[in-house]
Amino acid sequence: MKVAVIGLGSIGMGMAASLFREGHEVVGVDVREARLRKFSETGGQVASTVADACLDTEALVSVVVDARQTETVLFGDQGAAANLPSDAVCISCATLPPENARDFAQRMEDTGRHYLDAPTSGGPAKAQTGEITIMGSGSSAAFEKAGPVLNAVAAKVYNLGAKAGVGSSMKLVNQHLAGVHIAVACEAMAMAIRLGLEPRQVYDVITHAAGSSWMFENRVPHILEGDYSPQSATSIFTKDLGIVLDTARSNQFPVPMASTGLQLFEMAAAAGMGDDDDTSIIRVFAQLAGLQLPERETGNEQD
Amino acid sequence: MKVAVIGLGSIGMGMAASLFREGHEVVGVDVREARLRKFSETGGQVASTVADACLDTEALVSVVVDARQTETVLFGDQGAAANLPSDAVCISCATLPPENARDFAQRMEDTGRHYLDAPTSGGPAKAQTGEITIMGSGSSAAFEKAGPVLNAVAAKVYNLGAKAGVGSSMKLVNQHLAGVHIAVACEAMAMAIRLGLEPRQVYDVITHAAGSSWMFENRVPHILEGDYSPQSATSIFTKDLGIVLDTARSNQFPVPMASTGLQLFEMAAAAGMGDDDDTSIIRVFAQLAGLQLPERETGNEQD
Repeated sequence: MKVAVIGLGSIGMGMAASLFREGHEVVGVDVREARLRKFSETGGQVASTVADACLDTEALVSVVVDARQTETVLFGDQGAAANLPSDAVCISCATLPPENARDFAQRMEDTGRHYLDAPTSGGPAKAQTGEITIMGSGSSAAFEKAGPVLNAVAAKVYNLGAKAGVGSSMKLVNQHLAGVHIAVACEAMAMAIRLGLEPRQVYDVITHAAGSSWMFENRVPHILEGDYSPQSATSIFTKDLGIVLDTARSNQFPVPMASTGLQLFEMAAAAGMGDDDDTSIIRVFAQLAGLQLPERETGNEQD
Repeated sequence: MKVAVIGLGSIGMGMAASLFREGHEVVGVDVREARLRKFSETGGQVASTVADACLDTEALVSVVVDARQTETVLFGDQGAAANLPSDAVCISCATLPPENARDFAQRMEDTGRHYLDAPTSGGPAKAQTGEITIMGSGSSAAFEKAGPVLNAVAAKVYNLGAKAGVGSSMKLVNQHLAGVHIAVACEAMAMAIRLGLEPRQVYDVITHAAGSSWMFENRVPHILEGDYSPQSATSIFTKDLGIVLDTARSNQFPVPMASTGLQLFEMAAAAGMGDDDDTSIIRVFAQLAGLQLPERETGNEQD
């Protein structure tokens, strides 16, 4: 099966590699030359426009950053709606406001093509091994057409119903929780250090106690290693908690925890750490309060 | 070994039962007649004052609500400091501000007795089976004297060092995280319902995704069952996040996530749900926004 993957970021690149490994013909598109080059080096085909990638393609996977980019991929001048074969499926993986997912599905289905609302969970490592989770919703035809792609990239595919937007709503709930959990993990670890606790001991105790979370377990090791290179960047959560806040507001719904969490990510971004790891929130606390955080072991690089 | 257990709430009662099961002689004390009666019915001895319970007792376990009650148990007119044998150990399990733990330890050690700063994690069910976690700190003499008690009540005992206050600091970090996780679990589940998602499906997806937490897994089933009877009451977290906030403030340390979380527990308490389950926060959101929460299955009680 020929599959186009639009957006070769850490998730898209991993999904493309998983599709390739399963024997599919994969064409990658990205606006960044370096990402295309990297994909070529692993044996993937590349195309310079979405329209080129659409030729004879049965499934297009859009793994771009946000709703604006997704709209361009799908409905731009060189986009999927005008160039994909008439019975193809568009699988949209970016985290989107649910109303955008519903709108994109409607417009794509109006052209006779299929649309799967398919945000992901699991991160770059799971994308690379073909083991992400898909929070999917869409018509049975969309699920059917997308089946070989989903099998190649995901360990678990939720079918949350026939309507686009349900998958995106579920993803927002996940990001709402995940973002707050990262923010409080950083805040509580900072407070622990302020109280004189030993950070590794805190990690050991908390991961065996009722205060643990998936994010605490996953992210606090970055703090313990003093490594703020972006395994997942602060800017992803300013974006995703921003969508949670926008969606809550458009539904007249108060979300004080998500709101406060977003402010902490915004503080890290304001301090110039938007492209650093999302645990950089603890560096904001450390700057404010003069805390000594664990430092990265530098090895003997000068020898 | 003769052990006094002061405070027969859900944790204290479970610890007393575990001590009893391991063959220790256990004397229980509580200001509430009903709790004493319940303990008697299971075969335990009771005493009407702490002083009476101290007679020939090698270890006293204080499992009362807060610092004020702990101080009365330890240093009141009929308290442990004046009535325990001179080489006995006091094991203090309430969640305390670290400075209180340090102060109590100093004053107890000034009398020649031992003090173990020993807050717990795990809840009533683990207390009943003798499998709680103890976040302990204190002198090696205190740990040694307390050994048989710790073995009987805990699956895991952390020795966090020789100074009282470290255990209490660690417990605060745990409560900081746990409280915020409960608050955001309620907020995100409420938002999910507002967005039209099916609550059981949300639970299924999130517990298999990066948005999960120990508290999300443990508490959301209460919401799904519509059961707000207090498995753990709202008032525990108004108290414990209150201690987190007080301790942060006395250390001039900002904790915006804990602060917002506390406000949500205070909203539930203000709405008359202080003695209900701590997931009652979602009922505040439901009242505000007119959400339909899952309802308790009532069975055929009138037949």
